[in-house]
Amino acid sequence: MDIIGVSVPRIDAIDKVTGRAAYVGDLEVSGMLHGKILRSPLPHALITGIDTSEALKLPGVTAVLTRGDLEGLDPFYGAVVRDRPFIATDKVRYQGEPVAAAVAVDLATAEEALDLIQVEYEELPVVSDTLEALSGTGETVHDTNLCRESGYEWGDVADAFAKADHVFEDTFTFPMVYHYAMEPHAVIADYSNQGITVWSTAQHPFLVREDLARMFGFQLQQVRVVVPYLGGGYGSKSYTKLEPLVVALSKVAGRPVRVALTVEEAFKTIRRHSARCTVKTGVMNDGKFVARECLIHLDTGAYADNGPLVADRAAERVMGAYHWDNVKIKSYAVYTNSTPAGSFRSIGAPQAAWASESQVDIIADALGLDPLEIRLKNLVIKGEEFRPDRRPLDADPAAGLRLAAQAIGMNLDREPEDQDSELPIKIGRGIGCNLSGVGSSPTSTAIVRLHVDGTVTVFAGTTEIGQGSRGVLAQVASQELQVPLDQVGMVSSDTGIVPYDRSTGSSRSTTMMGLAVQGAAKEVKEQLLELGALHFDCPEEELSVNDGVVLRGTESVAYGTLIEEEFGGRAGELLGRGYVTPRMNNGRLRQGPAFWEVGIAAAQIEVDTDTGAIRIPHYVSVADVGVAINPQQCEGQDEGASMQGLGHTLFEEMVYEDGQLLNPNMVDYKVPTFADLPGDLESMMIENHDGPGPFGAKGLGEGGIVSAAPSVANALFQATGVRIKDLPLTPERVWRAIRDAKE
Amino acid sequence: MDIIGVSVPRIDAIDKVTGRAAYVGDLEVSGMLHGKILRSPLPHALITGIDTSEALKLPGVTAVLTRGDLEGLDPFYGAVVRDRPFIATDKVRYQGEPVAAAVAVDLATAEEALDLIQVEYEELPVVSDTLEALSGTGETVHDTNLCRESGYEWGDVADAFAKADHVFEDTFTFPMVYHYAMEPHAVIADYSNQGITVWSTAQHPFLVREDLARMFGFQLQQVRVVVPYLGGGYGSKSYTKLEPLVVALSKVAGRPVRVALTVEEAFKTIRRHSARCTVKTGVMNDGKFVARECLIHLDTGAYADNGPLVADRAAERVMGAYHWDNVKIKSYAVYTNSTPAGSFRSIGAPQAAWASESQVDIIADALGLDPLEIRLKNLVIKGEEFRPDRRPLDADPAAGLRLAAQAIGMNLDREPEDQDSELPIKIGRGIGCNLSGVGSSPTSTAIVRLHVDGTVTVFAGTTEIGQGSRGVLAQVASQELQVPLDQVGMVSSDTGIVPYDRSTGSSRSTTMMGLAVQGAAKEVKEQLLELGALHFDCPEEELSVNDGVVLRGTESVAYGTLIEEEFGGRAGELLGRGYVTPRMNNGRLRQGPAFWEVGIAAAQIEVDTDTGAIRIPHYVSVADVGVAINPQQCEGQDEGASMQGLGHTLFEEMVYEDGQLLNPNMVDYKVPTFADLPGDLESMMIENHDGPGPFGAKGLGEGGIVSAAPSVANALFQATGVRIKDLPLTPERVWRAIRDAKE
Repeated sequence: MDIIGVSVPRIDAIDKVTGRAAYVGDLEVSGMLHGKILRSPLPHALITGIDTSEALKLPGVTAVLTRGDLEGLDPFYGAVVRDRPFIATDKVRYQGEPVAAAVAVDLATAEEALDLIQVEYEELPVVSDTLEALSGTGETVHDTNLCRESGYEWGDVADAFAKADHVFEDTFTFPMVYHYAMEPHAVIADYSNQGITVWSTAQHPFLVREDLARMFGFQLQQVRVVVPYLGGGYGSKSYTKLEPLVVALSKVAGRPVRVALTVEEAFKTIRRHSARCTVKTGVMNDGKFVARECLIHLDTGAYADNGPLVADRAAERVMGAYHWDNVKIKSYAVYTNSTPAGSFRSIGAPQAAWASESQVDIIADALGLDPLEIRLKNLVIKGEEFRPDRRPLDADPAAGLRLAAQAIGMNLDREPEDQDSELPIKIGRGIGCNLSGVGSSPTSTAIVRLHVDGTVTVFAGTTEIGQGSRGVLAQVASQELQVPLDQVGMVSSDTGIVPYDRSTGSSRSTTMMGLAVQGAAKEVKEQLLELGALHFDCPEEELSVNDGVVLRGTESVAYGTLIEEEFGGRAGELLGRGYVTPRMNNGRLRQGPAFWEVGIAAAQIEVDTDTGAIRIPHYVSVADVGVAINPQQCEGQDEGASMQGLGHTLFEEMVYEDGQLLNPNMVDYKVPTFADLPGDLESMMIENHDGPGPFGAKGLGEGGIVSAAPSVANALFQATGVRIKDLPLTPERVWRAIRDAKE
Repeated sequence: MDIIGVSVPRIDAIDKVTGRAAYVGDLEVSGMLHGKILRSPLPHALITGIDTSEALKLPGVTAVLTRGDLEGLDPFYGAVVRDRPFIATDKVRYQGEPVAAAVAVDLATAEEALDLIQVEYEELPVVSDTLEALSGTGETVHDTNLCRESGYEWGDVADAFAKADHVFEDTFTFPMVYHYAMEPHAVIADYSNQGITVWSTAQHPFLVREDLARMFGFQLQQVRVVVPYLGGGYGSKSYTKLEPLVVALSKVAGRPVRVALTVEEAFKTIRRHSARCTVKTGVMNDGKFVARECLIHLDTGAYADNGPLVADRAAERVMGAYHWDNVKIKSYAVYTNSTPAGSFRSIGAPQAAWASESQVDIIADALGLDPLEIRLKNLVIKGEEFRPDRRPLDADPAAGLRLAAQAIGMNLDREPEDQDSELPIKIGRGIGCNLSGVGSSPTSTAIVRLHVDGTVTVFAGTTEIGQGSRGVLAQVASQELQVPLDQVGMVSSDTGIVPYDRSTGSSRSTTMMGLAVQGAAKEVKEQLLELGALHFDCPEEELSVNDGVVLRGTESVAYGTLIEEEFGGRAGELLGRGYVTPRMNNGRLRQGPAFWEVGIAAAQIEVDTDTGAIRIPHYVSVADVGVAINPQQCEGQDEGASMQGLGHTLFEEMVYEDGQLLNPNMVDYKVPTFADLPGDLESMMIENHDGPGPFGAKGLGEGGIVSAAPSVANALFQATGVRIKDLPLTPERVWRAIRDAKE
């Protein structure tokens, strides 16, 4: 029985298609009330007074939560720095920050109550530009505007630049973008003196549990975080978000409370870091890279969230997939008065790759080299220990890049693009490539239950965020335990039920939780062999398992029969545990990262030089997956990442003016739709069976977003000779750039 | 740290006292509809037609379920014999049998719909008397009226009777009684093509899962049976009851559906077997028993339910706690047209002990012997292998009986009761004693999770039915793992979450699930010692655990620290599994029963000979518990059982006339209240640390009900000289008996 590499249908497909799938917004909890949040209209202000008395008089209002209700709890949280109160205390730091919240018998009454809450503010100057913010002369969002300073260096860049044939220096900007998960954040909280139960749209329920336990003074065993169906994450639901506020609401209301955000509120909850990135690269005449120096400023918004880690990762990832003898990187996460920025699919990488890979093409053009050729000359090769104290490269970016380039007709020996100068439509081809050492913490556990009818339940704390983890983990259990896939049920994110998993993100679940599930299945298998040895009265070595039976030569006995024999009738079950810890798994997971994820893209585009509009007839993404456990799911992940990348490449940007977010809605903030799909969107899988995960798999899902922007901008340059260093490549921006170039 | 033997408060106390505890009737499930059942008004009739068309036209009615909706499923179930359809098919067999059910948006509409359903019946003769039913000449409820014939014999009773100095033969009757759990049966079912979730008042959720999977064609992993807080069981919620009907309702309605029974409906769902029991005993002049022959007829009602097993157990238990060289027992479970009878606290035992222990006093009186003395002369002694192929007696009934007798002033050397013949109040003292080989299946499993903060969650499928199992099992985990009790959380009956447990009943949970929990805790402890050995860099043998830390001499390390060290930060958890199977536990559980439960009672009563009313100034129950893990809980169990026994002794009886149940309500069916409590209700625990359960514990909870009736009837005889052989001992019956005796 072999189910690895089979594109079985999603196990949640029917529930989702028929509408049976219940999301947090669909759940009913006995006695549940409804909450709404009053948000600051000002980006930066002291709160000088809050009067809730009129709101509390409104019939149907149960409670109003303000900074006055924080006694006996710690309101501060944050993935790295605990700088964010779940409700404003002394001041507000961005437009949209929660200032108060009302609980009522229904949503309309709760909304009405918000209008009756009087808040007095004393306005403060707005911090909005990251460079100004660090100048040390103006207003500060917190005690300082510097959230994180990150960086590293080796070699001697100054010397190398001096000796280089050429030195290039370019500055690129990357916009603030919004994740746009279909389902905005929603939380139901049920607080009692004995514990907390939370139903939440949380990607990392175990980390939320940790925060809630600390903030509200409970033991871990008293806090239960349940994630029902979840409508997309992309990092927007990483770490703690809305949960503490709703728990506090339930505490003051004495009843379960639900708060479900609108899209506008989600825009004011979390976003991706905008960035300014200056890259200076020293190159020899033959195209050999000798030194790189980078300066990255990331706008982390009003609170740190995961910003410090994003700064670290952007610093790492701006090196690109290249070998460097001399490197000096500085990366800053900077506070401003805007929506806090945090995790977003491949943190820091699209910003870094945008700069790094755009500049590679600038260099190639200047030196008269082919963009593929200059990359192949400098790429890290498989097995190379190219960064100190890290796992050697376990992927082959050169092979992937050749594949991608070839797919869009960008071979090394190709003819230059034949542009008809009379036509407004210009054609161009571009590539991009980046490496991410995935931040997959090797901390997952799982339980497998084998029932007396031979069917299986897997407990795995990976959150199903639409990526298909339930199906893939079920395939792992099915294969390892040799139980048909349609007899494997999955129980996922519920900290009260499933054992610990650190998080769902960083392309980690197939690898880390996959190993935990495989380990748990193995432990059940061991017991089956023990019982089989009793059954056949033979040594275990004579036995094997296949398709639901233990085999001894031509004899076989069903798993269920062995359980019946052990438990004396149709009763009992076998249990297996799987652990992934840094120490375990023969040390395979000890040396970070767990694996290197390559993000390779190639785009063939058409630019209408009259309008600036870009169409993409052919787009290729290449993912090195080790083994594609479910190829269709892998492609789905990679295609989704590609499209999300094309979103920030072509359309997306959160626009602020005087600290006010101007476009927090799906009319003014444009995300790609099916009409924007490339004519041919191709996802190619490299399968070398060499990943650290189960059956040689490794993760994917992030690589696809990384190189979208540079591949398109590089194609745009090929098509028009215009180099744009700011995203998104809107028609207006492209048209202006073409016009400016003509002048 | 020692928490065994400590009367810690119930862990569900606050939830229950504050009303937070949500029972099935309190739960909200998204999209839930409400169902009501149309029940047969006739005790025995063919169904010739059902017309639901008018009901379906009623606005708000979603679906109506009848026998016409059974395609593709198996409607029959039964704990021993699958003779019961969840909705009547060809005929109805008792008044109250479900014939149809309606689902509507609210309860009132569902009830209204029932009035619009037209059912045509063709009446059949009613079978009501068990002796007539077996005569072979009349109507039959099923193909036959004989549900089970049970029995055994050894020695030669005919010969022994011939040689005996005296032979006594008496016939006793025991009434139909109702469990009166505070919460009637209630079920919410959510059916989809991919599985079933049921929230139910089920004592044995894993057995319900098995039935639902079979009946509706699902795998075990697709069926989830959840038991939230449950308001009392006593056997009334053993095995499958209302669940299949509600699942079928959800199937036809396409939505989750709740059905919550009224008290009247619960009376028509399950009851205890009424019994007629003839006991013939051969005795020598010195009081030595030489032979016993018994004939038991148990009225099992319209369907078998657990009746066959009740017949077996009544047969076993009618031997009493005595040594017999010659025995011949016959026990019949007989179908009649009445509410099906099934499990009820100590199945078959109160009926058997009522006959056996009443006759012992008849014999003692006839031979001029003291009731205690004749018992001590004949009791089985500890260690005796008094029944073939069974565990030797692991209790000391003589010691317990002496204790009980002494407590009410009924010593061997006591003076005869000083009755003032002028006063209407007469005083009497009586004792009773019986042995039950508990039917505790050795099939339990458990999981223990040790979180990174050192707190614990225990997964144990024992249903908390009010007996305090959560607390006791938490104490077992706390003690074994050395984690303070207030850091142990319990997750119980949910087949989707907790691993297999056979059932909650037969006084088995402390012993069987207790061992499983202890085993799971041990497995976690082993891992802590492994990690401790890494931490201290020493052999595990140098380590021990105490109160949340691993110790090496004077050094210690907290459990949580060891987990952090293994998982690299505040992450991860340790998992342990516990199995109880017949083969495991060093064979300790191989030879049934798991232990012998002794039911000893002693009553001092006052009889008002003018009215027949019995008061009980002093009542003593003795339980041999091995070790009382939580003495207060043990006493609570034993006191509850005693009071329930006094209920059927003094008040309770379901009255049928022409197949119609006349008193299915709490006004006409009288259960004991606090006003009926004995002046001094004493529960004595014998603790010999010799039980097969954790820390030497054994189960209790059933023994207390067994000897209530004979102890009171024996006291009544002491007080008045009147011997009553029929229960309950209502004032009217006692008054009539005294009057008849005077005549």
